[in-house]
Amino acid sequence: METRKAIVRGAAAVFEDVGYGPASLQMVAETAEVTRGALYFHFKTKELLALAVIEDQHARTKESAADVFSRSLGPIETICALCSCFASLLQNDPVVRAGIRLTLESSTFGQRIRSPYTDWMQTMEQLTLEGQASGVISSKVDAGAFGRYLVASFTGVQMVSNVLTAREDLTERVEELTAFVRLTLSPSAQHGFQTLDELTPHV
Amino acid sequence: METRKAIVRGAAAVFEDVGYGPASLQMVAETAEVTRGALYFHFKTKELLALAVIEDQHARTKESAADVFSRSLGPIETICALCSCFASLLQNDPVVRAGIRLTLESSTFGQRIRSPYTDWMQTMEQLTLEGQASGVISSKVDAGAFGRYLVASFTGVQMVSNVLTAREDLTERVEELTAFVRLTLSPSAQHGFQTLDELTPHV
Repeated sequence: METRKAIVRGAAAVFEDVGYGPASLQMVAETAEVTRGALYFHFKTKELLALAVIEDQHARTKESAADVFSRSLGPIETICALCSCFASLLQNDPVVRAGIRLTLESSTFGQRIRSPYTDWMQTMEQLTLEGQASGVISSKVDAGAFGRYLVASFTGVQMVSNVLTAREDLTERVEELTAFVRLTLSPSAQHGFQTLDELTPHV
Repeated sequence: METRKAIVRGAAAVFEDVGYGPASLQMVAETAEVTRGALYFHFKTKELLALAVIEDQHARTKESAADVFSRSLGPIETICALCSCFASLLQNDPVVRAGIRLTLESSTFGQRIRSPYTDWMQTMEQLTLEGQASGVISSKVDAGAFGRYLVASFTGVQMVSNVLTAREDLTERVEELTAFVRLTLSPSAQHGFQTLDELTPHV
């Protein structure tokens, strides 16, 4: 079990560094400091290694998200806390960074891995619907569209932060993202004209 | 000149298909249907080929953007039209798709290409400032933050659309993005409470 963990960590380091294409089982064995035999006992192919890294990343992300949900913060704060939590994982966890890179590259190894995106889109849509039911999120927001947009936006924010600063500015960039999220979801934001109309009869 | 163009188009097809790592000059020569000698006359290394594709993509994008600017649409409409125009380029132009993939992968070939992001961030910031000066964009929006966020969001929207649907749904996803852009920038959106306050004395 410890050997398997060391292999997955080694594979994550290699995939994060060079991507799927140029990575080899030899590089993973060297990085994980295991023999080719031990590596082969656990993983027969590079593809299985990549899938194990993606699965491990998804498990770690879900675990951190469970911590956020256990804080019962309310829908908007939960959405923003999930974004900050993922940013922190990306900065601190090489398996998460490798898993996200591999998911994006998955079509190049004959897989098209959709669930890490679609699962989070559904979670964000669900939180938006809950906020609308309790009146803290504007009913004018299309919850499905917002879930899709937020997950795609976050993906772009972390990737561009990686290209521009090797993710050193990711905390600030995600703070900017959550500020726009609050602006978009706030009921006061889009009810500007409504409030005006509602007031008019009383004038 | 025609040979060089054919080589850049062939290189774009190869880079779009397999990414930078596994691409070879041999694959580019075969795809472009030129001899190794002709290829070598124009490009000595894979890195120079990748840089030529990125440069060509940036030129094509700027040219399409110039068309949008020539329509004098006003700041919010210009921002939204630029997003639609880039979406259409991504769906129709393999050189643009390859250039964007290479820019994201550029750190893996010892380059860190920032200007395609930072140039567009500045353009979006500038348009936001213009809209604020003329009163059509809320003065509450941080123009720099909005420029950074929009370019990163668009990057994520097109990448996730690629992973989930090979960019078949990109038009709809970019329409959702521009709807959120309008919501964020609209002066009525964030002046809801202000309008209320301003009205109170007259009640």
